[in-house]
Amino acid sequence: MKDNTHAVKIFIDTHLERYLDEVCELCAQPSVSAQNWGMTECGQLVEDLIRRHGGGAETYDTPRNPVVVGRFAGHSDRTLLLYNHYDVQPVEPLELWTNPPFEPTRRDGKIFGRGTKDDKGEWIARLAAIDALRAAYGGTLPCSVICVVEGDEEMSSPHIREFVRQHQALLGCEGAIWEGGDIGRDGYPIVPLGVRGILEVELSVRTLSHDAHSGNAHILPNAAWRLLWAVSALKGPDETVRIPGFYERVQTPSEQDLAYFTSLWEANPALAAQLKNLYDVRSFAGGRTGEDLLRSVFSPTCNIQGIGSGYQGSGSKTIVPSVATAKIDFRLVPGQDPEDIAEKLRSYLDRLGFRDVDMTVMGWMGPARTDPADPLVRIVTDTAAAIYGGSPALVPLIGGSSPGYAFADTLGIPVVTAGIGYWDNRPHAPNEHFRIEDFIQGTRHLAAILDAFSRS
Amino acid sequence: MKDNTHAVKIFIDTHLERYLDEVCELCAQPSVSAQNWGMTECGQLVEDLIRRHGGGAETYDTPRNPVVVGRFAGHSDRTLLLYNHYDVQPVEPLELWTNPPFEPTRRDGKIFGRGTKDDKGEWIARLAAIDALRAAYGGTLPCSVICVVEGDEEMSSPHIREFVRQHQALLGCEGAIWEGGDIGRDGYPIVPLGVRGILEVELSVRTLSHDAHSGNAHILPNAAWRLLWAVSALKGPDETVRIPGFYERVQTPSEQDLAYFTSLWEANPALAAQLKNLYDVRSFAGGRTGEDLLRSVFSPTCNIQGIGSGYQGSGSKTIVPSVATAKIDFRLVPGQDPEDIAEKLRSYLDRLGFRDVDMTVMGWMGPARTDPADPLVRIVTDTAAAIYGGSPALVPLIGGSSPGYAFADTLGIPVVTAGIGYWDNRPHAPNEHFRIEDFIQGTRHLAAILDAFSRS
Repeated sequence: MKDNTHAVKIFIDTHLERYLDEVCELCAQPSVSAQNWGMTECGQLVEDLIRRHGGGAETYDTPRNPVVVGRFAGHSDRTLLLYNHYDVQPVEPLELWTNPPFEPTRRDGKIFGRGTKDDKGEWIARLAAIDALRAAYGGTLPCSVICVVEGDEEMSSPHIREFVRQHQALLGCEGAIWEGGDIGRDGYPIVPLGVRGILEVELSVRTLSHDAHSGNAHILPNAAWRLLWAVSALKGPDETVRIPGFYERVQTPSEQDLAYFTSLWEANPALAAQLKNLYDVRSFAGGRTGEDLLRSVFSPTCNIQGIGSGYQGSGSKTIVPSVATAKIDFRLVPGQDPEDIAEKLRSYLDRLGFRDVDMTVMGWMGPARTDPADPLVRIVTDTAAAIYGGSPALVPLIGGSSPGYAFADTLGIPVVTAGIGYWDNRPHAPNEHFRIEDFIQGTRHLAAILDAFSRS
Repeated sequence: MKDNTHAVKIFIDTHLERYLDEVCELCAQPSVSAQNWGMTECGQLVEDLIRRHGGGAETYDTPRNPVVVGRFAGHSDRTLLLYNHYDVQPVEPLELWTNPPFEPTRRDGKIFGRGTKDDKGEWIARLAAIDALRAAYGGTLPCSVICVVEGDEEMSSPHIREFVRQHQALLGCEGAIWEGGDIGRDGYPIVPLGVRGILEVELSVRTLSHDAHSGNAHILPNAAWRLLWAVSALKGPDETVRIPGFYERVQTPSEQDLAYFTSLWEANPALAAQLKNLYDVRSFAGGRTGEDLLRSVFSPTCNIQGIGSGYQGSGSKTIVPSVATAKIDFRLVPGQDPEDIAEKLRSYLDRLGFRDVDMTVMGWMGPARTDPADPLVRIVTDTAAAIYGGSPALVPLIGGSSPGYAFADTLGIPVVTAGIGYWDNRPHAPNEHFRIEDFIQGTRHLAAILDAFSRS
């Protein structure tokens, strides 16, 4: 059996600058789905890039942003699907960026810019892996590859489930590699076997037709107060969510899950200190300590993404604000259903008398888990061991969410992750970046996964 | 005794355009003290205007914005002090203004723009009254007038008490007319006999060095939640402030105060409906109804001016916010002491475990009351009856605050109000304006007050 590891390595080392240039080209194109900024242009650039790398590209409209599908033909009848997204998170607060977020900049062996890690850099690394493996095989890939690159992931992929359902035949495959992955502080990949679901809602209330002088505060209802009372009814400082029935369907971690957590904890006893240092945290939410920092990923969350009302400039403004808005996300664990939670939230607010508080569901995704015994899990971990020189850590469930549930359920395939990240890429935050060394290793890993998958 | 009412009226009617032009000139000069925007330029323009109208002008530095003092000499040894301010409130939200806030615009018999009512239009009306009365007397006023025009009123006049103390001799007078006044829906002036004090604080908390991905919400402390829990401990939906000792020194209204409220209520039985209509309010704060809408001005308030944390743009952003800030004002009633309340607030937060929530006192003013039996009250009400053709309403206490306490206490003088406002000038809000007819009447009233005061 041909070992292509060396050939792939040489290819990546030789052509690295081309791929880093393409990362910068793609990241220089704004594509903030939440603000509908640059989406069409970015979708077209993704299509161009697929063609530039020898793939067939097709763009499919959805009620929001188009999905771009790339196809790279291979020798065998095996097909691996690679999922990525071309939209990025908003860039505010701008003043905390060292370089402008859409002017990707190389500094200290890293590339900084919005989308570098999440998810444009990840996707370019995959094109590099495809090119490298194809070259090693003399021009044709050993298996077929389908690239699905969507434009609404940062908006919770509201239409991906429908898209997958409608294009089931087109997307036929035996497994999928999800949008990206990270290595831990030990230098070995972390392989998540599950993601939490998410429900994102906006709560808003108007109490007055316009802001009023605060000398009237004894009689005019204040929108900020009204919203605060509603939101503070959702969760107290003990971090327990107070929506009746919220925990009803929560699946607790299995013995095997707990064993994975224990081995993760033992592998990195300094984790708590590292997290405290990374975020300058005095104490963790709900007073969590020790192994519970890992296990508590099985606790669903109620998180305020943002809240705003009234005057927020410098100094003061003596007004009674007329409008207030809060954005809240709930990370849901296996067993919970986002639509069910949305209903429970609305009826809880109603029961408390907050019918005047409007609720808009901004998006949702279901939770998903992959069976640790699936062969694709073995492929990803074995190849990781070869490339990174050590065993990857299996994580029963991670804190984030992904539209993976839509592919896993509809196509009946295993979904596993691999990528170019590390523990401090700052996705969604100012100064998002990746390390170039991780880009190289992630590319090699993906090429090895494709190679092993084609033989499995 | 010479009746100058007619001569003053002719003068105002003849010279109206000059004064409206000066209102626009002064309002076109931004002067947002909270944002330190245009303050020096506006102070200079005030000085120029005093000189333009024949007064002597002097500018006094304070630790923040200068106080401009104008002096207009008169025949008698009586001196009336006119207090105004040249600073204005911030103009946000800009999109709710029909014309740009610093481009004063005449429309439908009104002048729109930030500061038109509060307080630049009020002050120009006073210059007009001085000119008119001086003309009626053939060139010299019947009493001396001191204009005090400060630049920090919208920031709670942090230095005015010290300024008055330091310049007590310079400010010698027998009474003061405060920054402005309003007429009610019956067309007759409302004469407040007291103002509430105010304490303005900013509460802010940082829980993380930077915003984090909300997939970490089960372990990373959220600044928005932290602030919400702290702020929601201050007041519940019943509108009762929960800071221990907050109500300790509150003076309840006297029998006479309650009688004034009853007569105000009887004079305008449609008040509740009018307020509901003006602000499109479903129900009043704390469920107040009837005469309590007036009497409850004796209830101190805890009002959120604004609150902000995390992502507030369109769509969503899945972050755990690192910083959150709220601005809160407390309107305090006679008997309460702003410095005492600030201490009680801080120690309450500490006792609840919110030592991590920083508190900054942005400003404060004491409450103040004027004796209804004072001769200046009679002068203002008698002249109002003559100009407006009906008896003004005496109000024991109004909801707003003013640095009047600093003048009343230090100089030992009565402080009464008169001005150009009506019930919907929208001070502090978008589309602030005054009605030109009110400007004319307010000017005539002030001239009549000066005239009567000089003879008293």
